[in-house]
Amino acid sequence: MRNPLLAPDLREFVAERDEAGLRDFFSGHHPADAAELLDDLEAGDVMFVLGLLPGRERAAIFDYLETTLQDAVADQMDDHDLAALITYMSHDERAGLMSRLPVERPDHIFQLLARAEREDIRRLQSYEDGTTGAVMTSDYAIVPADETAAAAIERLRHVAPDRETIYYCYVVDDDRHLKGFVSLKNLIIAPAHRRVADIMQRDCVYANVDDDREKTAEKLAEYDLLALPVVDHEHRLVGIVTHDDVIDVIVDEATEDVHRMGGVGPLEYSYLESSFAQLWLNRALWLSILFVAGFLTTWALTEFEGDFEKVPALVFFIPLIISAGGNCGSQSATLIMRALALGELTPRDWFRVFNREVLMGLSLGLGLGFVGFLRALITPSDRVAEGQLFKLSLTIGLAVAAVVLAGNLVGALMPLLLKRLGFDPALMSNPFVASLVDVTGIVVYFAIAQAILL
Amino acid sequence: MRNPLLAPDLREFVAERDEAGLRDFFSGHHPADAAELLDDLEAGDVMFVLGLLPGRERAAIFDYLETTLQDAVADQMDDHDLAALITYMSHDERAGLMSRLPVERPDHIFQLLARAEREDIRRLQSYEDGTTGAVMTSDYAIVPADETAAAAIERLRHVAPDRETIYYCYVVDDDRHLKGFVSLKNLIIAPAHRRVADIMQRDCVYANVDDDREKTAEKLAEYDLLALPVVDHEHRLVGIVTHDDVIDVIVDEATEDVHRMGGVGPLEYSYLESSFAQLWLNRALWLSILFVAGFLTTWALTEFEGDFEKVPALVFFIPLIISAGGNCGSQSATLIMRALALGELTPRDWFRVFNREVLMGLSLGLGLGFVGFLRALITPSDRVAEGQLFKLSLTIGLAVAAVVLAGNLVGALMPLLLKRLGFDPALMSNPFVASLVDVTGIVVYFAIAQAILL
Repeated sequence: MRNPLLAPDLREFVAERDEAGLRDFFSGHHPADAAELLDDLEAGDVMFVLGLLPGRERAAIFDYLETTLQDAVADQMDDHDLAALITYMSHDERAGLMSRLPVERPDHIFQLLARAEREDIRRLQSYEDGTTGAVMTSDYAIVPADETAAAAIERLRHVAPDRETIYYCYVVDDDRHLKGFVSLKNLIIAPAHRRVADIMQRDCVYANVDDDREKTAEKLAEYDLLALPVVDHEHRLVGIVTHDDVIDVIVDEATEDVHRMGGVGPLEYSYLESSFAQLWLNRALWLSILFVAGFLTTWALTEFEGDFEKVPALVFFIPLIISAGGNCGSQSATLIMRALALGELTPRDWFRVFNREVLMGLSLGLGLGFVGFLRALITPSDRVAEGQLFKLSLTIGLAVAAVVLAGNLVGALMPLLLKRLGFDPALMSNPFVASLVDVTGIVVYFAIAQAILL
Repeated sequence: MRNPLLAPDLREFVAERDEAGLRDFFSGHHPADAAELLDDLEAGDVMFVLGLLPGRERAAIFDYLETTLQDAVADQMDDHDLAALITYMSHDERAGLMSRLPVERPDHIFQLLARAEREDIRRLQSYEDGTTGAVMTSDYAIVPADETAAAAIERLRHVAPDRETIYYCYVVDDDRHLKGFVSLKNLIIAPAHRRVADIMQRDCVYANVDDDREKTAEKLAEYDLLALPVVDHEHRLVGIVTHDDVIDVIVDEATEDVHRMGGVGPLEYSYLESSFAQLWLNRALWLSILFVAGFLTTWALTEFEGDFEKVPALVFFIPLIISAGGNCGSQSATLIMRALALGELTPRDWFRVFNREVLMGLSLGLGLGFVGFLRALITPSDRVAEGQLFKLSLTIGLAVAAVVLAGNLVGALMPLLLKRLGFDPALMSNPFVASLVDVTGIVVYFAIAQAILL
């Protein structure tokens, strides 16, 4: 949505410190657009522009700025300005910002905030990364059970500017235990004098504050909700998770799975935002594990040296055979891991998967094996001893079939096993499957060669 | 959310055809829960249960049933019942259902529907898969520009049951050109007598009916919206895309990327729902391409036969070296593809990526190369000719470093190139990167061996 025509205008206004021009420029934009335009400026200029806008608008745009720019701007603001900004920010964003401030600063800021704000930020900060508590926001709307629909709507009208959403509101008792949920739609449809208690849904879907954020995201998606109430272990309402936060969670979790599958550990920041050292460590760890695991192939080939000294042509096909197995294993691992991630499969389905993938591995393996057999038949005649060509080709064909079958089963079953043992199935990355199959493949290949050829 | 305690009750009610029990059972459940319970039953039983419920409730539950069960139930319903059901279904779901009916049936059903419904279904069916038109729904809410806020709310109240959402509504002129957007929140906050035209946002964010659904999903997510209006090429409002559909799109697109990365073409259905033949074809295609590409490794090794006949120990390290390059390439390809998919990178960033990944490849390669050098030093002395061990080890170390660097660059730059050429960068799957690096790796390895050892 970046508009290349607007950016030069903006730069000009900023360079000339044209306050009227800037106020005008920003009044017509969605905060997300405004933030995107500001993302290209220096922190000092951003602070100048934001300073011209009314408090609520300033905070709305700040909420959308990139994390690194938020931090840089906060760094240049004095404590009073930052505290004022924080008062208007959305509750989840500001808790994040406070967590990223340098050591002493949060204490200074906290002294300038009202007690309620302070406690709210401290509570949101207290939840562990990856939990529902860490993605929820506390600016939800509450309506009393004994109010009429008309009175509840009137109440929502007043609190609307400070709430993340007023389309869903919640009913709690004196101890904040979650008692029910009512949508603005149902409040509007209901006769004006009807009581909230008679409209609200009592057994509403909710999440626990300690639930994995992924589980909560799936729940919201499953029920097509705008927001999900979040309760603590005593069933007290402590926050809501909204549809837009859920989209972020879903995208983050998909990124994590994709990275794991490619043999990269989860990154805290994006590719460009991550430092070279972070990326290096993250990648070096997995590469080293896989490299050391690869020593097994070296060991196996050392053992089989006698065989390929007798028939050197066996060497020609080593990469072809082990890659075929690795590729087939990557395919089945990918299919099973994604199905597990989407909840389409559980480890209890292992037998069904096993049956299907045995057949799949056999049919793919026999197909590729036949192609491999044909390929081996055209090996130049000066590279194979007289009369050995057919036996060599048969060896290649059978080895491809066997290694493809083995690779397919390893790829399909290992993720189920990992999940069953409580690990993340995505740890069975494509490179990891390939490495496992490499060793197996070499052993199987030479076993077949010894039986047929040697 | 499946409740194992409820399922046996349900089966009992169904077995005994206990109509009162069943009506009672379903009255308290969210349609998504009800559908999940029904997903375990036979189509005939599902039809019996749905037949007991009022039309709107029946359609709401039907909307949530699994696609295959929807089709099976529709198959058993007579045309009149199905037409009645379709009248109440959400507009996007019913267009999908109609598209999946067997050949002659849609014509019969169309005759039983009102003209407006018929045209609506035909229009929604007309958009190509993957476009915004194919995921939008036509049951959006419209308010006239000259109406007061109070009158608009009253209007929404009446249409609420038949609209996907009333939280966002749209203003169109007589030719249905999109003129503006107003949220229920703003209608409620506004003074009762204020006109919609004075409250509405005129330049609202929208999508075109032909836009890629992924782009539309990103737009909705970027602006944290509940729904996005969709216009045709004459800027006439034709539908909306809602937050829940966007979540489905995001999950689908992530699945497609994950599958592509693992060397599996996009699947129409989930792993368990896809037929064996569909999966086989899908997988066999990519495996065959990769297998035939692998012939290059066979050809290269045939060329280098003289080298490894002189020093057979060179063979021991072939899989180790090419895997290290493939793994490193999978990592960089994964990082770059995901960053491209998330819009964090564009092909124009290639120089930045190149610089970074040259350094990364060098540092990872030198690290692994050193480990490889040490590993080669402990090759059993009876397998290496007198005095060759150090030179062999040096060859291995340098080859690992060079192949890791090459693999890293191939993995990082090929997705950028593909994207630049207009292809899906995820086509550069992990198996494909590994195959490319296999050949390169063998050639580089033996070139280094020839320079140092032979």
